[in-house]
Amino acid sequence: MKGTIDTIFNPASIAIVGATTRANSVGQAVIRNLIHGEYQGVLYPVHPRLKSLYGVKAYPALSAIPDAIDLVVIIVKPEMVPDLLEEAAQKGVSAAVVISAGFKEIGGKGAALEKRIQAIAANHHIRLVGPNCLGVINTDAGVRMNASFARIMPRPGNIGFISQSGALCTSVLDYAEGRKIGFSKFISFGNKADVNEIDLLHYLGDDPRTKVICMYLEDLSAGQEFIRVASKISWDKGKPILAVKSGTSSEGARAAASHTGSLVGTDSAYDAIFLQSGIQRVEGVNELFHYAMAFSRQPLPKGRRIAIVTNAGGPGIMATDAAIRSGLKLAPFSSDTEEQLKTHLPPTANIHNPVDVIGDATHERYEIALKTVMQDENVDGAIVLLTPQAMTDILETAQIVPNVAKTVDKPILCSFMGIVDVSEGVAHLEESGIPNYVFPEAASRTMAAMARFGERLSMGNRILPKLTFDRDRANTLIQTKLNGNLKCYLPEREAAELLGCYDLPLLSSRLVTGPADIEAAIDGIRFPVAMKIVSRDIVHKVDAGGVRLNITDVDQARHAFAEIVANGRRFNPEARIDGVLMQEMAGKGVEVIIGCARDPKFGPIVMFGLGGTLVEALKDVTFRLAPMCIASAHNMIRSIKTFTVLQGVRGNPPSDLAAIKDCILRVSTLVANHPEISELDINPLIVYPDGQGAVVADCRILLKSDNA
Amino acid sequence: MKGTIDTIFNPASIAIVGATTRANSVGQAVIRNLIHGEYQGVLYPVHPRLKSLYGVKAYPALSAIPDAIDLVVIIVKPEMVPDLLEEAAQKGVSAAVVISAGFKEIGGKGAALEKRIQAIAANHHIRLVGPNCLGVINTDAGVRMNASFARIMPRPGNIGFISQSGALCTSVLDYAEGRKIGFSKFISFGNKADVNEIDLLHYLGDDPRTKVICMYLEDLSAGQEFIRVASKISWDKGKPILAVKSGTSSEGARAAASHTGSLVGTDSAYDAIFLQSGIQRVEGVNELFHYAMAFSRQPLPKGRRIAIVTNAGGPGIMATDAAIRSGLKLAPFSSDTEEQLKTHLPPTANIHNPVDVIGDATHERYEIALKTVMQDENVDGAIVLLTPQAMTDILETAQIVPNVAKTVDKPILCSFMGIVDVSEGVAHLEESGIPNYVFPEAASRTMAAMARFGERLSMGNRILPKLTFDRDRANTLIQTKLNGNLKCYLPEREAAELLGCYDLPLLSSRLVTGPADIEAAIDGIRFPVAMKIVSRDIVHKVDAGGVRLNITDVDQARHAFAEIVANGRRFNPEARIDGVLMQEMAGKGVEVIIGCARDPKFGPIVMFGLGGTLVEALKDVTFRLAPMCIASAHNMIRSIKTFTVLQGVRGNPPSDLAAIKDCILRVSTLVANHPEISELDINPLIVYPDGQGAVVADCRILLKSDNA
Repeated sequence: MKGTIDTIFNPASIAIVGATTRANSVGQAVIRNLIHGEYQGVLYPVHPRLKSLYGVKAYPALSAIPDAIDLVVIIVKPEMVPDLLEEAAQKGVSAAVVISAGFKEIGGKGAALEKRIQAIAANHHIRLVGPNCLGVINTDAGVRMNASFARIMPRPGNIGFISQSGALCTSVLDYAEGRKIGFSKFISFGNKADVNEIDLLHYLGDDPRTKVICMYLEDLSAGQEFIRVASKISWDKGKPILAVKSGTSSEGARAAASHTGSLVGTDSAYDAIFLQSGIQRVEGVNELFHYAMAFSRQPLPKGRRIAIVTNAGGPGIMATDAAIRSGLKLAPFSSDTEEQLKTHLPPTANIHNPVDVIGDATHERYEIALKTVMQDENVDGAIVLLTPQAMTDILETAQIVPNVAKTVDKPILCSFMGIVDVSEGVAHLEESGIPNYVFPEAASRTMAAMARFGERLSMGNRILPKLTFDRDRANTLIQTKLNGNLKCYLPEREAAELLGCYDLPLLSSRLVTGPADIEAAIDGIRFPVAMKIVSRDIVHKVDAGGVRLNITDVDQARHAFAEIVANGRRFNPEARIDGVLMQEMAGKGVEVIIGCARDPKFGPIVMFGLGGTLVEALKDVTFRLAPMCIASAHNMIRSIKTFTVLQGVRGNPPSDLAAIKDCILRVSTLVANHPEISELDINPLIVYPDGQGAVVADCRILLKSDNA
Repeated sequence: MKGTIDTIFNPASIAIVGATTRANSVGQAVIRNLIHGEYQGVLYPVHPRLKSLYGVKAYPALSAIPDAIDLVVIIVKPEMVPDLLEEAAQKGVSAAVVISAGFKEIGGKGAALEKRIQAIAANHHIRLVGPNCLGVINTDAGVRMNASFARIMPRPGNIGFISQSGALCTSVLDYAEGRKIGFSKFISFGNKADVNEIDLLHYLGDDPRTKVICMYLEDLSAGQEFIRVASKISWDKGKPILAVKSGTSSEGARAAASHTGSLVGTDSAYDAIFLQSGIQRVEGVNELFHYAMAFSRQPLPKGRRIAIVTNAGGPGIMATDAAIRSGLKLAPFSSDTEEQLKTHLPPTANIHNPVDVIGDATHERYEIALKTVMQDENVDGAIVLLTPQAMTDILETAQIVPNVAKTVDKPILCSFMGIVDVSEGVAHLEESGIPNYVFPEAASRTMAAMARFGERLSMGNRILPKLTFDRDRANTLIQTKLNGNLKCYLPEREAAELLGCYDLPLLSSRLVTGPADIEAAIDGIRFPVAMKIVSRDIVHKVDAGGVRLNITDVDQARHAFAEIVANGRRFNPEARIDGVLMQEMAGKGVEVIIGCARDPKFGPIVMFGLGGTLVEALKDVTFRLAPMCIASAHNMIRSIKTFTVLQGVRGNPPSDLAAIKDCILRVSTLVANHPEISELDINPLIVYPDGQGAVVADCRILLKSDNA
């Protein structure tokens, strides 16, 4: 039988090979977790000698089990795993969780062993999680499977968690228990010999019990496939995905390599992939759960305009600061709202946003204030702050919040500030689905993340551009240039020719072979022009006196032609001179860079940024994997810090953003269609004011035949 | 008797006016806090009718108390406060805490009332905290004074906390109670009618029981005075000060204004003040306590090189990422250390930094690893990570950490990750003075803050530059230009004259009045030069044909002189022409801006940044209050994001940083010495390669007489 991921999460029967009663062993932890977790199917411990483990009948071998087995959980020595998997296949098992360690992560022998089990699983269509993992947990009441050596069975919830680090899982479960956070599925996927993060993402994307997907990743198995699966979940299903990707620093990346035995891609590629997938990347586990709590329990805000209700001015300002810093706006209240607040709140209260109900506020005052602002059309969501002052009725105030929340389809987050006095109130909030944060900054940051996700949802995505291009001509060009060689560098003119196949805006140019040609050549070229010698034997044209700039009329051009050819001959009497290139000179505009590099794992990555050394010093560039959708190109332009320059600063007109977008999409298509393009740099692309286009002022391309 | 701040914190006797037994009232809370807190002096409740409150003898009026009173705590209606203060003065009271609200914060009548009590306190030398505050707490065992209406008496500790928001205090106390954080002194200073943050800072700076000072501020009373007091504490005493300053966003600032009735300065001025004071500014209360826990309990690292010891790879990478992001470095271990680790750790362990003792590590393995890395000279501090895995002995591991910490003078921070399983271990760590963080990122960030503070300590500070300048000539110039007017704008040549009084590097120039002068004038000016007409009747010199650039020899200069004068006469036959200015042309270099504005509260603020529109778009500038010390000018240059440009990018040579520093210090001294300088812009200052100086290429100054 062919296994599916669903068999891993919903098996009707489980065999546990390596189950034991030895104290403090992994084998003991797994069997006890399955038993104490009250698994709803049938357990079959496999043990060489014992008749039963903790009252559950045991079998001496897999083959000795009289019934059909869906899933086998393996906790034996690594050397024994291959034979065991073969045995499982014979038994008709279609899913396996290999908890045992000692595989790829230790290199050498372990890596070879992992290749073997990978092959066995593939041959027999067994879906396999691991090896080197903590296990798999499904909290669904109909399954209740804790096939892991975690210390705790997590409570049911709607967060799906997948992790590449097993040890991290133990901390996450402990933290979640302390914060009363529940999970739908919880998977430590280890070395991903078979089932990887993409399979799991796909599965959790379809899982109706999972409302938010949280991931801890150290690498990714594939780029475009990940984007395809994840962006479907983000956009088509509107299900948020949050990810911690570690190994961002070079030191971190080194540690990741030694830890997982996997090649870690560059961080910019990961940033690109997450952006193109609609995934919210977060810096740590703390933030991951701050966001997950809100995303899984509250509706998304329709915009960035929030209201703050507080019983203390200081915290109100702190929340406001954090909100603005995170990109939110304080909602301007309607006059109706302010009128109502004025009627119901004491005269010393602040009826503007942030609303200050004053230190002696009880729950009634909170209720009227919160109700009023939530009904304002200008308000997309609210943050409720509470400091435990003398008159504050904390629990009662906690009770009104979910009541108000029920009446509107807008998110409410709370910060009942403190730990001890507020604990009863906080517990009530969390039980009622209202996330609470110890201090207001976290509430503001979380609301901002929700707003960003909501905005992303509303943007079109995954629509690939429909461009005209001449792929065949480009191919012919590439093959001609490579001419069977491993690599070939294309300088400006030849690179431009290739860009021309994809209709990138080039400076017009004509090759003139004699002074007589000039008159005809200027037809279709605008002065001023540059004139450059064309000779395969002269590499450094300027040194050879082979370049003249700013030529403004035909006479000057004739004069320059004669001079350039004479200079060339003087420089190298043997040189074969094909002629002189007359090229339109680019006018003044904003200089930007569009580049492309090829990641060994993820393929072509397109870069965009402003031109100039300053931008280089600031590393103010952004990346996306190619091919990219229209929205990605749109977002690239807007995601650099220097975007304001393109919008027009100091009285300069706004630049032609549509032209930049078009160029990015053409480069993206070009490099995706032609894997031989190893590196590409358009530097600069000169961008003119809105409506006036852009032009490639210089470019170079490196071809490599072995990318194909 | 003249009161001191110490009387507020260490009174031998306290009268409480407004003490009451009315349930849930502020007056009840205060008297009960004093009684239950077991105040070590004598309490004198004042009540119009009651004979005693909670067993403590009461008096009908202050004047009826037979004994001397050090401190009076006032909780009566605001209108009654002035008379009460007068009565207290008659009684010889020298310190007061006014908890009552209804003063400046409500404006109008309240503000007038506050002015009255301010005057009374000043007349009678009473030091007064408040009004509109939560009160004052001193946990010292010899005092034990909780003169506040907080819900809790905090535990003793070595953190001094001062807050401008009373309500925030209630949350901070509740949070601290939950995290078992103690305080030396805890002060809500409210409207600061008398005692302000500077007085308190000064006091806590001298307080031997206070090891770290934490502040929540909404505004500052004075700039230079604050810097003077705080930087003494930071540098001379090496006592860290951490501050949350709210109202950073414009919306936040608006809320602050409505909340405190105080004028909130611009955020850049606050940033400057904190930087010049050696204060670590933090974004929120959470971070404030993350840092305070470590600063108050652990020694500072001598450098940025940290070791990480972990029992799980993933969290090790996360901690590394956060460490690098925060500016720390992973220490490269000595070969000795690696040898030792190799000997004592299992073969699958990672003996490089971050050290992975592997999931089955017990405390013995942690101990040997931690001891070994802490003894390495390349290691300045360590972060210990623990995930609660099956074999992990959490409490035992927690016990070894303080033991190792005792043997070295380097900081250790922990992240025993989780909440429930790790709780016993975490409690032990915290009792033993080892700060613990739920997730590793916070530990890394905190260690980085400690390293930054340590570095700042080691830098010289408060050394003002010794510069030569001609203050009198500058004064005369300013008075001449102002000539009794309210304001006066100085264009380039006149502004340069003023800058010249402070020896700023100017382009040499000579006024030539006839062609015959030219020969003499070029002595001391380097070609090429610019020539510009000088006439008070010709404002737009270029339009008048009055400017010639790039003149490279004497002949060209003579020719240009004739042309310029002729053009001038043709342009305006009536014009009085003083001559032609020959001015050295600035060579190419890196363009920077040095500017100065004047904050209504804090006086002159100097700005520094790179020149050009791009930098303007990025707002990549930094500010310091003038006058500033040498180290501040040094730091300014290094604190802009584009500093790499000054270090030399893409093969460009490094710029003359010493010349920039000198210019900043000269501008700082100039604007500090002459309050009439309202605005100043040197834009650009052209900076040449190291050793070759810099030159003011353009400048303008706005004078205002009413600043003086």
